Amino acid sequence: MIIILKNGATEEQVAHVVERIEAMGLQAHLSKGTYRTVIGVIGDEEKIRSAPLMAIPGVEEAVPVLPAFKLASREAHPQSTIVEVGSGKTITKIGGGHFGMIAGPCAIESAERLDEIAGSIKASGANILRGGAYKPRTSPYAFQGLGEEGLKILRDVGRKHGLPTVTEAIDPRHVELIAEYTDMIQLGARNMQNFVLLTEVGKTGKPVLMKRGMAATVKDLLMSAEYVIASGSMQVVLCERGIKGIDNACRNMLDIAAVAQVQLMSHLPIIVDPSHATGRPEIIPSCALAAAASGADGIHIEVHNCPEDAMSDGPQALLPEQYATLAAQIRKVAAVVGKTF
Amino acid sequence: MIIILKNGATEEQVAHVVERIEAMGLQAHLSKGTYRTVIGVIGDEEKIRSAPLMAIPGVEEAVPVLPAFKLASREAHPQSTIVEVGSGKTITKIGGGHFGMIAGPCAIESAERLDEIAGSIKASGANILRGGAYKPRTSPYAFQGLGEEGLKILRDVGRKHGLPTVTEAIDPRHVELIAEYTDMIQLGARNMQNFVLLTEVGKTGKPVLMKRGMAATVKDLLMSAEYVIASGSMQVVLCERGIKGIDNACRNMLDIAAVAQVQLMSHLPIIVDPSHATGRPEIIPSCALAAAASGADGIHIEVHNCPEDAMSDGPQALLPEQYATLAAQIRKVAAVVGKTF
Amino acid sequence: MIIILKNGATEEQVAHVVERIEAMGLQAHLSKGTYRTVIGVIGDEEKIRSAPLMAIPGVEEAVPVLPAFKLASREAHPQSTIVEVGSGKTITKIGGGHFGMIAGPCAIESAERLDEIAGSIKASGANILRGGAYKPRTSPYAFQGLGEEGLKILRDVGRKHGLPTVTEAIDPRHVELIAEYTDMIQLGARNMQNFVLLTEVGKTGKPVLMKRGMAATVKDLLMSAEYVIASGSMQVVLCERGIKGIDNACRNMLDIAAVAQVQLMSHLPIIVDPSHATGRPEIIPSCALAAAASGADGIHIEVHNCPEDAMSDGPQALLPEQYATLAAQIRKVAAVVGKTF
Amino acid sequence: MIIILKNGATEEQVAHVVERIEAMGLQAHLSKGTYRTVIGVIGDEEKIRSAPLMAIPGVEEAVPVLPAFKLASREAHPQSTIVEVGSGKTITKIGGGHFGMIAGPCAIESAERLDEIAGSIKASGANILRGGAYKPRTSPYAFQGLGEEGLKILRDVGRKHGLPTVTEAIDPRHVELIAEYTDMIQLGARNMQNFVLLTEVGKTGKPVLMKRGMAATVKDLLMSAEYVIASGSMQVVLCERGIKGIDNACRNMLDIAAVAQVQLMSHLPIIVDPSHATGRPEIIPSCALAAAASGADGIHIEVHNCPEDAMSDGPQALLPEQYATLAAQIRKVAAVVGKTF
Repeated sequence: MIIILKNGATEEQVAHVVERIEAMGLQAHLSKGTYRTVIGVIGDEEKIRSAPLMAIPGVEEAVPVLPAFKLASREAHPQSTIVEVGSGKTITKIGGGHFGMIAGPCAIESAERLDEIAGSIKASGANILRGGAYKPRTSPYAFQGLGEEGLKILRDVGRKHGLPTVTEAIDPRHVELIAEYTDMIQLGARNMQNFVLLTEVGKTGKPVLMKRGMAATVKDLLMSAEYVIASGSMQVVLCERGIKGIDNACRNMLDIAAVAQVQLMSHLPIIVDPSHATGRPEIIPSCALAAAASGADGIHIEVHNCPEDAMSDGPQALLPEQYATLAAQIRKVAAVVGKTF
Repeated sequence: MIIILKNGATEEQVAHVVERIEAMGLQAHLSKGTYRTVIGVIGDEEKIRSAPLMAIPGVEEAVPVLPAFKLASREAHPQSTIVEVGSGKTITKIGGGHFGMIAGPCAIESAERLDEIAGSIKASGANILRGGAYKPRTSPYAFQGLGEEGLKILRDVGRKHGLPTVTEAIDPRHVELIAEYTDMIQLGARNMQNFVLLTEVGKTGKPVLMKRGMAATVKDLLMSAEYVIASGSMQVVLCERGIKGIDNACRNMLDIAAVAQVQLMSHLPIIVDPSHATGRPEIIPSCALAAAASGADGIHIEVHNCPEDAMSDGPQALLPEQYATLAAQIRKVAAVVGKTF
Repeated sequence: MIIILKNGATEEQVAHVVERIEAMGLQAHLSKGTYRTVIGVIGDEEKIRSAPLMAIPGVEEAVPVLPAFKLASREAHPQSTIVEVGSGKTITKIGGGHFGMIAGPCAIESAERLDEIAGSIKASGANILRGGAYKPRTSPYAFQGLGEEGLKILRDVGRKHGLPTVTEAIDPRHVELIAEYTDMIQLGARNMQNFVLLTEVGKTGKPVLMKRGMAATVKDLLMSAEYVIASGSMQVVLCERGIKGIDNACRNMLDIAAVAQVQLMSHLPIIVDPSHATGRPEIIPSCALAAAASGADGIHIEVHNCPEDAMSDGPQALLPEQYATLAAQIRKVAAVVGKTF
Repeated sequence: MIIILKNGATEEQVAHVVERIEAMGLQAHLSKGTYRTVIGVIGDEEKIRSAPLMAIPGVEEAVPVLPAFKLASREAHPQSTIVEVGSGKTITKIGGGHFGMIAGPCAIESAERLDEIAGSIKASGANILRGGAYKPRTSPYAFQGLGEEGLKILRDVGRKHGLPTVTEAIDPRHVELIAEYTDMIQLGARNMQNFVLLTEVGKTGKPVLMKRGMAATVKDLLMSAEYVIASGSMQVVLCERGIKGIDNACRNMLDIAAVAQVQLMSHLPIIVDPSHATGRPEIIPSCALAAAASGADGIHIEVHNCPEDAMSDGPQALLPEQYATLAAQIRKVAAVVGKTF
């Protein structure tokens, strides 16, 4: 931690800051410049990180020198984590050169429909099946998901097609139930800072798909991953899915630079979801290919066989045949940047 | 709902859109322009709102003409709602000319400290006491609150000073407990779209303080209020507390225009929290006075008697004496725009 | 300047950084922490500010400790600047407790119309008349202004009503001409970083009204003011007029916290333009009053006597009678925070 | 244009709107819904586009159905434009499957340095040389460029290496001079809405490289292209280079979805500049490859042979050897999506 004092900070103020640092068992190293005094704090930064340093009179700024996410940081774990989703013969690996192709409908609507979609995406190369049983809808009047019935359908369809499954948890009281039925648990963008839910999901020890919140910085995303890891699951796959931006032509703004940032700062895999990032099928392919070339560890795409009938997010779904074409291109591009299939 | 078709939409596509509209029990009214065909949908817009219209081939845009938040809208309830917090002799009204002065520390740390702070803010004119017992911290290693012990302290200190109380709920499993101890339940910014929590809090029928999410539009905020109302509590006070912006000089960007927008679109009261909006004590007074002049129905400010010792958010807290000065000015400004005290 | 080195920076890298600092005639002060080495640079920060420090191998971050805007900073000039607009008997002061009430139409359309508007706003308390003769329109097919003919009308109408005038410059080749006709020159939001224009306008020595760019931070705004001051005019009034945000319900997002920020960092006056910030007449009054209470040094409002006929920005103009009501309220609120009229 | 009236709009208000539409030589087509009346305007939308419809009492919203950029729109010109930069044997094509590789230093510093950089990037596959002779610097105290001397160096070095050249214009008074020396004129992000400059540059008829402003939507960018085309040059290459966002970990936020948006809405080529978009060399390669895969028509990258010595933007420059590696990968990825070299 580096503490920059205000221009005109008094001797007493400087002494008081030093005193507080030493009271935390740390050392203060003063550097008096022409205009400012700067204090370098020597010792375990964790001890001082959550202290309200900026509230001490005379302090202008406190600049941390270590990331606040220890377990998620690459500094602590230089080796890239490979997350394994599923078990037995239906394991899909993500990270460390392995590429995840997650696809499926927004919501699970019926066994027949999911079966048909799963068959087609499997044939196109998808290796994880997604589908929502509990839906976080912005309107209380919209379809909220099939619940446990949906979980059963997802499990059965996944097994039939040899696809590991992922579904979203939105209520801490349902996490155990979801963990019984599915191979990977999704934490949605709106719940990225629902720390109660993060903790419950982490406790299951299951692989987690954590989506970036719409107002979250990349560092915020990594802090939320830290919660999950600290609760018990190191198997976290991060997902860039667009954040709020100043141009609302798309539903969100895909922050493609987040891929490289995460890979520099963390050992966790990062995938991209162009479906939620854009909300526009005509733009999804371009963004999906961009993500593959950026070095992302996977792509998450919503697919539906009759979008105009879909009970949730129909307008952003690709048709199975569109997905087939795109998936083939994604593999070609990902191969150029070193992914294996 | 107005449906704008793409340039070059075929007769078949137009017919198909009309068919789907009529299948929902609505009427379609065609208007063929020089370049585009436009379809006006006549009938109950609710029936069509969540239909995936944009997924129908040939559709370019679907423009709703009614707000999606019915219960929260001023169209449905022209009279401003007055929310009553507390009971018996310690009732504070917010809305319809009544001004809420919510103050207190970020977290409840001890009975002694809260008692001292409560005494001072009451003397300065505060009429609701805030304090967190469950804290949604971005780091898993930071202080997470005193839990039920904190709730007891808050209730007792509130009673002693004749101040109704508000505290945040972050876990649906704690909502009932919180409802027993406190007069108003806060839904925090990070949980504004935690629909599970919104529903649980709404069910208590208690007054609710709903903070705007950091990526939420004003319409998103009103949709979340709709959830709470639909679940059982009409007593919702909205709170503008800054959203993410392109200048990070302050913690968030206070969207002062949200006050007038809410008052045009909704009957619910709206207050402003300059503490979280700016995170900088030297800027809070200017923004608090701005909020009072804007016509807001109240101000929410964090106050601590020793910020450099605070267990949460110390750097943004005002000292009790700073709050006293500011509260006096707020009342003067609010009086100019017609508030009564 | 404080230079933070990367974790694992080598001895050679540290030595090379020190060497470069000393080559610029500055001293380096090393502080080795547990995880990072930090170098405090002692001496005139100006010498090092534009050096590409981040390009030196091993450097993680370079944190300046002094603002880059010297002439505009309050550190250099603690006394608030009072800008005087006009001459002789028609001088309007802005800053240091003096409040500017700038009003008028977006574009100058005819002598009759401007005369009528000027008469009404003068009666309502406006003390500077605005009107555009050269309009920066986003469409090449929209009305571009009357040019010199408009300047003449503005000058004559201003004189008749005893109102100093302000008009926008958009072309460096017209600056001299504009300076002959008007009392204050406006630099528009789209030209805030048109450094060629800033320099030409600064050279005239005239009072300048500098609007904040839509993507500019407060510091960017002060850097642009630095350009004008360095070119020859210290008489700069800054204007917050909304920036791009994530909610597009209003034309822009009014950053009310910018007022306090500017007043802390700079000696220059800062006014607020709620017309461009919101673009919605029904929201302008709330935001104008907020600005007055925030401590702003003035308010800029567009007024038109027949908005539906206006040749530019009609939809955001207030009617003269709406301005009259608002101006009276603005004065009351501004008086509470110490302004004199 | 579709005009949506307010709930409760009176018969007189409806009649007045119709009257104004007909006065512009257009037809009004009424559609009365359950809650709202909607008016479809039939005829040439251009006539009504800049009319202040929203200022007419009773109007809630005016929704245009045609893009405001006619000349730049794909509706008007379905065929993709191929821009040719240079002459004789040194022509580089951009668009329609042809891929532009623009590279070079931020500023032209000396003939020797530019010669060395040009030689290396040419060998790596670059086909246009960039370099700034007039620099728009945010600080008045920073290096402002070599001016005409720089233009001469650029021309000579370009000729020597068989590379067409591009340089930025920032002053309308220099445009003619720049047009004599260079093959393509750049309009920088800060000047994207400097309409005076746009017009002057368009008049030269030269190929133009137009960078997206930091607060500009994709539609704003296309409106600015419309200015250039309307002034005389159809040869416009657009450039996505990052906009302001809510995460400031990078200098700007690369909006990769802009590529597909432009290609849907316009016939003009669009390239990507990851150097300015990120400002971080360690992130540039990932974003450059993403851009190539997205279908962009070219990539613009800053290259310098000694970044720590650079007179402008050193910290974001790639070294010649880094560019060589990246350029080879870019070509492979671009080939997958159908570009020819």
